[in-house]
Amino acid sequence: MKQTSRPHGVYSPVVTPFDRSLAPDHQRYVRHCKWLIDQQVGLAVFGTNSEANSMSVDEKKRLLDTLVDAGIPTARMMPGTGCAALTDTVELTRHAVSVGCHHVLMLPPFYYKGVSDEGLFRSYAEVIERVGSDALRIYVYHIPQVSQVPLSLGLIERLLKHYPRIIAGTKDSSGDWNNTKAMLERFQPQGFDVFAGSENFLLATLRGGGAGCITATGNVNPAAIVALYENWRGVDADARQKALDATRAVFARLPMIPALKAAIGIYAHDRDWGTVRPPLVALNDGQREELESGLAQLEFSMPGIEATV
Amino acid sequence: MKQTSRPHGVYSPVVTPFDRSLAPDHQRYVRHCKWLIDQQVGLAVFGTNSEANSMSVDEKKRLLDTLVDAGIPTARMMPGTGCAALTDTVELTRHAVSVGCHHVLMLPPFYYKGVSDEGLFRSYAEVIERVGSDALRIYVYHIPQVSQVPLSLGLIERLLKHYPRIIAGTKDSSGDWNNTKAMLERFQPQGFDVFAGSENFLLATLRGGGAGCITATGNVNPAAIVALYENWRGVDADARQKALDATRAVFARLPMIPALKAAIGIYAHDRDWGTVRPPLVALNDGQREELESGLAQLEFSMPGIEATV
Repeated sequence: MKQTSRPHGVYSPVVTPFDRSLAPDHQRYVRHCKWLIDQQVGLAVFGTNSEANSMSVDEKKRLLDTLVDAGIPTARMMPGTGCAALTDTVELTRHAVSVGCHHVLMLPPFYYKGVSDEGLFRSYAEVIERVGSDALRIYVYHIPQVSQVPLSLGLIERLLKHYPRIIAGTKDSSGDWNNTKAMLERFQPQGFDVFAGSENFLLATLRGGGAGCITATGNVNPAAIVALYENWRGVDADARQKALDATRAVFARLPMIPALKAAIGIYAHDRDWGTVRPPLVALNDGQREELESGLAQLEFSMPGIEATV
Repeated sequence: MKQTSRPHGVYSPVVTPFDRSLAPDHQRYVRHCKWLIDQQVGLAVFGTNSEANSMSVDEKKRLLDTLVDAGIPTARMMPGTGCAALTDTVELTRHAVSVGCHHVLMLPPFYYKGVSDEGLFRSYAEVIERVGSDALRIYVYHIPQVSQVPLSLGLIERLLKHYPRIIAGTKDSSGDWNNTKAMLERFQPQGFDVFAGSENFLLATLRGGGAGCITATGNVNPAAIVALYENWRGVDADARQKALDATRAVFARLPMIPALKAAIGIYAHDRDWGTVRPPLVALNDGQREELESGLAQLEFSMPGIEATV
């Protein structure tokens, strides 16, 4: 593993457990986060797969406080702090920095569409100026198929020029390898750390000099993904990548977030884990069976997950 | 004008003035709202054109309190209360109802894309159950080109069946007349009030039995739009519609929200009115000139607006 305090390796957008009243379940949350940390996976809490944008800023602040109070190292966290509203993004980012989480993953404001690079530059700049911390490190979050607000290479170049230390990297969830490749070639040499948005691109990203991946399925398949990260120069790296892709495909055939939560529920024998907030809908029985049989065929397991319940 | 307490006529998503620090300017806001009320325009505060999703729930609650404290009648307001997060939507809707604003315009949760009608139904149902007020009246807000989360006719039918009094109508901002027409034919007879999303469709909507329009340009051209609403059965109705379309076209050629604010600034001799929050960008000098000359050619005016500064 690289000797550096810069985030690297495998992170997961931690799925957020909700109780039956749809409130965040802090106890289950801490246990799942500790399990991930034990598996060498960093905590990209409040990502897309965390249903972060179905929660208020206050709910997210309280969850972050709970993790810090539970002794989970802030150096292993990369909270998502980008909201639709400028003031929400500033408040959540400030809070993250105040509790020692200096690395944040930041969506652009995502309600207004067709906005200009100038407007997006000002959005990030305004947040940086308002938070006003030299310790802040922002990973810009490119997920155009969901946010519908892409981050262009030109925007990143301009942000890097103005805030060379604070703009620290990206998660590229576009699924467009040409875009990831361009980021690796143009910006990684400047110390801008490129994380692939899923483990499908982990090996290619590492071969291109990137930092790792931030991936939904890190929630359920952490050990194997970390094993590829740690052995990516090995002769079996391509075989490992192929195996990871096969596991991910079982989840990707279903609605991803409900499928991740259902899998945790299945392997932890805790069906309530499948609860999601609207507008998402939990897997139905047929989908659960499809998930179970698909994973069983791969002899999938989640060692230790049952102890987290 | 119809003798009914149900909202009808012309509403405007009130543009939100920001000061130079980008904070909402409550004084300018109250004066602009009073001017609109004097022009017989209802206040759809916190709409898309209000930059509502660039503000936090707290900022919107405080603005609403300011309007109520200023004595503006809540019966003339229809605040937008739909946020990305379930808990934010509940909080803002509850607050609106608590201060006497029973009619709200509600976006679906808009971060997650490709969500099912089942998930959207549960989203609205959960808000309705949590707010728990028989006085609540929801106008569902269909603006797929921005939200990227369309509201299908099937969803509306299901909502109307389950919550026949609370689901009160819609703003259809799709710009797709076939969709508006289908809503008018299927749901307006059940007392579901259809508002066109712009005055381009005002006459057609009224002829189809609809309730009026909720339109961005109500902020700047209220009197003429209201005049069509009040005289839509007149022989000059089509000519009035044509004139409204010509005025709107001047704004629609430019980024709409910055153009609305710039126009108020121009006619009120208050250039700071042009301020927007990122990710939006104020008009540049060339765009301002285009706006000024386009409006001058139409002999456009905003009577009384200069007294609001």
